[in-house]
Amino acid sequence: MSTEEICFLSAVELAQAIRARKLSAVEVMRAHLAQIERVNPKVNAIVTLTAEQALQDAQAADAALARGDQVGPLHGLPVGYKDLTETKGIRTTFGSPIFKDNVPQHDALVVERMKKAGAITIGKTNTPEFGAGSQTFNKVFGETANPYDLTKTCGGSSGGGAVALACGMTPLADGSDLGASLRNPASFCNVVGMRPSIGRVPSYPAKIAWNTLGVPGPMGRTVQDVALQLSVMAGFDSRAPTSIAQGGSQFAAPLTRDFKGTRIAWSIDLGGLPFETQVTNAVAPQRKTLESIGCLVDDATPDFTDADEIFKVFRALEFEAKHGRTLDQHRALMKDTVVWNIEEGRKLTGAQIAAAEVKRTALYQRLHRFMEKYEFLLLPTMQVAPFDIKKPYIDEINGIKLPTYIDWMKSCYYITVTGYPAISVPCGFTPEGLPIGLQIVGRHQDDLGVLQLGYAFEQATGFGKRRVALA
Amino acid sequence: MSTEEICFLSAVELAQAIRARKLSAVEVMRAHLAQIERVNPKVNAIVTLTAEQALQDAQAADAALARGDQVGPLHGLPVGYKDLTETKGIRTTFGSPIFKDNVPQHDALVVERMKKAGAITIGKTNTPEFGAGSQTFNKVFGETANPYDLTKTCGGSSGGGAVALACGMTPLADGSDLGASLRNPASFCNVVGMRPSIGRVPSYPAKIAWNTLGVPGPMGRTVQDVALQLSVMAGFDSRAPTSIAQGGSQFAAPLTRDFKGTRIAWSIDLGGLPFETQVTNAVAPQRKTLESIGCLVDDATPDFTDADEIFKVFRALEFEAKHGRTLDQHRALMKDTVVWNIEEGRKLTGAQIAAAEVKRTALYQRLHRFMEKYEFLLLPTMQVAPFDIKKPYIDEINGIKLPTYIDWMKSCYYITVTGYPAISVPCGFTPEGLPIGLQIVGRHQDDLGVLQLGYAFEQATGFGKRRVALA
Repeated sequence: MSTEEICFLSAVELAQAIRARKLSAVEVMRAHLAQIERVNPKVNAIVTLTAEQALQDAQAADAALARGDQVGPLHGLPVGYKDLTETKGIRTTFGSPIFKDNVPQHDALVVERMKKAGAITIGKTNTPEFGAGSQTFNKVFGETANPYDLTKTCGGSSGGGAVALACGMTPLADGSDLGASLRNPASFCNVVGMRPSIGRVPSYPAKIAWNTLGVPGPMGRTVQDVALQLSVMAGFDSRAPTSIAQGGSQFAAPLTRDFKGTRIAWSIDLGGLPFETQVTNAVAPQRKTLESIGCLVDDATPDFTDADEIFKVFRALEFEAKHGRTLDQHRALMKDTVVWNIEEGRKLTGAQIAAAEVKRTALYQRLHRFMEKYEFLLLPTMQVAPFDIKKPYIDEINGIKLPTYIDWMKSCYYITVTGYPAISVPCGFTPEGLPIGLQIVGRHQDDLGVLQLGYAFEQATGFGKRRVALA
Repeated sequence: MSTEEICFLSAVELAQAIRARKLSAVEVMRAHLAQIERVNPKVNAIVTLTAEQALQDAQAADAALARGDQVGPLHGLPVGYKDLTETKGIRTTFGSPIFKDNVPQHDALVVERMKKAGAITIGKTNTPEFGAGSQTFNKVFGETANPYDLTKTCGGSSGGGAVALACGMTPLADGSDLGASLRNPASFCNVVGMRPSIGRVPSYPAKIAWNTLGVPGPMGRTVQDVALQLSVMAGFDSRAPTSIAQGGSQFAAPLTRDFKGTRIAWSIDLGGLPFETQVTNAVAPQRKTLESIGCLVDDATPDFTDADEIFKVFRALEFEAKHGRTLDQHRALMKDTVVWNIEEGRKLTGAQIAAAEVKRTALYQRLHRFMEKYEFLLLPTMQVAPFDIKKPYIDEINGIKLPTYIDWMKSCYYITVTGYPAISVPCGFTPEGLPIGLQIVGRHQDDLGVLQLGYAFEQATGFGKRRVALA
């Protein structure tokens, strides 16, 4: 098999091939390292490479198979971790010059679990400074390009991981999502990114353990690959007090499900948010795909009143909690947008935060009633298509000026505040060939449902199969 | 069987007797109504009585058994709900003159579950205004007396329920616990009160759905009764986003467990908090009880640095969220301590709240490491014994002045901030015969463990069996 053929196998296929000893872990690793060497200079997705250790680990993985050891579901798979995810002994910068030489002493919980399942660390993937903003650039490593058009952004903040997947540089990638960060880069790079339920993937270490916005989660080229990775990442851990008391095995089974009669709310603009026409033009025709698999699709949008205020209050509070001390010590080394977010957090009053809590609860209950009627809410993942890589963020859509650097992510962060699981799956292309994603939002803790519907949609459309061939 | 005999059967025994048709639900109801008529005027625990409907429901319960219907585990048991718990069609005042004529349109989720399990509503139990403070008095119904000494407080805020149990007026009672409100009245009234894990008993309706301080929970005269009630109250409900994804059946099984070799941290004063001598004198000798059942008991206290600040910040924020609007509309009808709590919440800054989040996480991780070594932490439930009913709160212990109306509840609210489950079980008496409780704190979400150890302690000591006979 050629390097290209190996690197564009799905993670499920690759893991099977290694387990069946049709491919050795070393062959697989060499192919991915070759792909990285060839492609990464064009896109700058993998910012730290651990090639030597990865090859040694691949040899050990082959030896384990040769001995007949029991191996995990990801045995021998190369994986890159987001540079916000702490990796023991491997530089983890958080995209910040302040932490450019930071080498963690411990693995994050998701890394522990991925390693235990047999994944081999190949390196770290790029992220914006402290993961802030859905555009992947920072002062340590620069910007990550969209492989579908190198002059465009790959989105973010899990941008490096999405590009690594899109380019066949890794078969799996982790990420995290506060406002949009697993869904946006997936949408921009024609891959799959899932924001799991709060606590589905426990977060440890964490500065704020009862966080109800930011979550770790999986990305892959196919929905089944995302499910495979989630089956490893998910599960209870008492170090994370919000973690869900369920194992991940439910996600390891085939995702096939009959959607005949399933009620879908179809919201092309989330009740009047500005969306670029090239986005809605790509998504609108796919309503019929849902109908073709038997879904009952209604135009319907729940009442998201107060979602913007709720998100901005808790995001600001989270930034102050996570980065306030760093601001006090290193203000000059922080980008303006992060400084702004922290300072917004400091300015909040107890009355504002309490009001946001009450409004969030009322919103949750409204959405809950809506989702009693509809099993899923579907909408375009992003309000815009991939944009100029030199533009730090979108400040206007359809002539409507946006007040902050995060306002163009409402189609994702309105979902964040509900805590509902959501997945972005490839949904087509703009006339220029830029990827567009469809966002599937499921009921409270129904991570399995969004995977199953995402899988059915992927099978029916095949958009995710159109790969770029970077020369 | 005499009224007295029926009313002091355990809930488990009573439910078995009704199911086996050894006692009819009507007999049981009549006995409890007679007991209420005789005893309640002395203690003022049940503030709204629904005798007529309760007798009708009891007749219907007997008819269901006569027909051979499948019945729930609480079939025919009379139960009183805390006057903070909303009951459809039954006045629910929250102990506040503002809501003195409030009649809810819906049952709270716990009431739904108790009814579905066959419990029959006998009335509402007293609580301080908005459940604030561990002393049960309010302007609507007055004060609830301690049956062991009518000049003393029964504690609170689930005081009415604890007294109803202690006096044989109900076999089960619900309650809720933010700072101490299930543990304190249990301790003061020689009954059992359990603060479950966050989300073990879903809270609905709730003003703040992601609340991580206040929890609903069960009280009973025996640990097995508390477990029986928890088996009905517990379980996932998607209207409560923090609810734990596990059913309640694990709590319905016998609680017998071998504690040989179980490591216990024994903390007689939580590392230097002021405790009345009459409290520690009652609790200290019980260390040997734990040893007698095989536990390995060490004197050990985890590091609770910042627990006080964390609790006060989040309590104040919760008061503003829940009652801020009511304050704006009805200030003159609110007690000073509630006004103070709300105003403290308003004064908070984002920086203070974020700092409290970070400190809470650090505390959680310290406690988590401590609880890797020890499976349980044991301490006196309260820092003081039941005190003068005319005293609204304790402002001094052992000559140490306390700055706020809640400071005397630290032995409970330090536990609250961890989110760990805790139970208060009867642990002896002061020389004057006032009850003292032992608090058992378990690991994250190990509600079953605290019930099992509580049961073993109860079996070994029998303190809960010493009942008052109010003439």
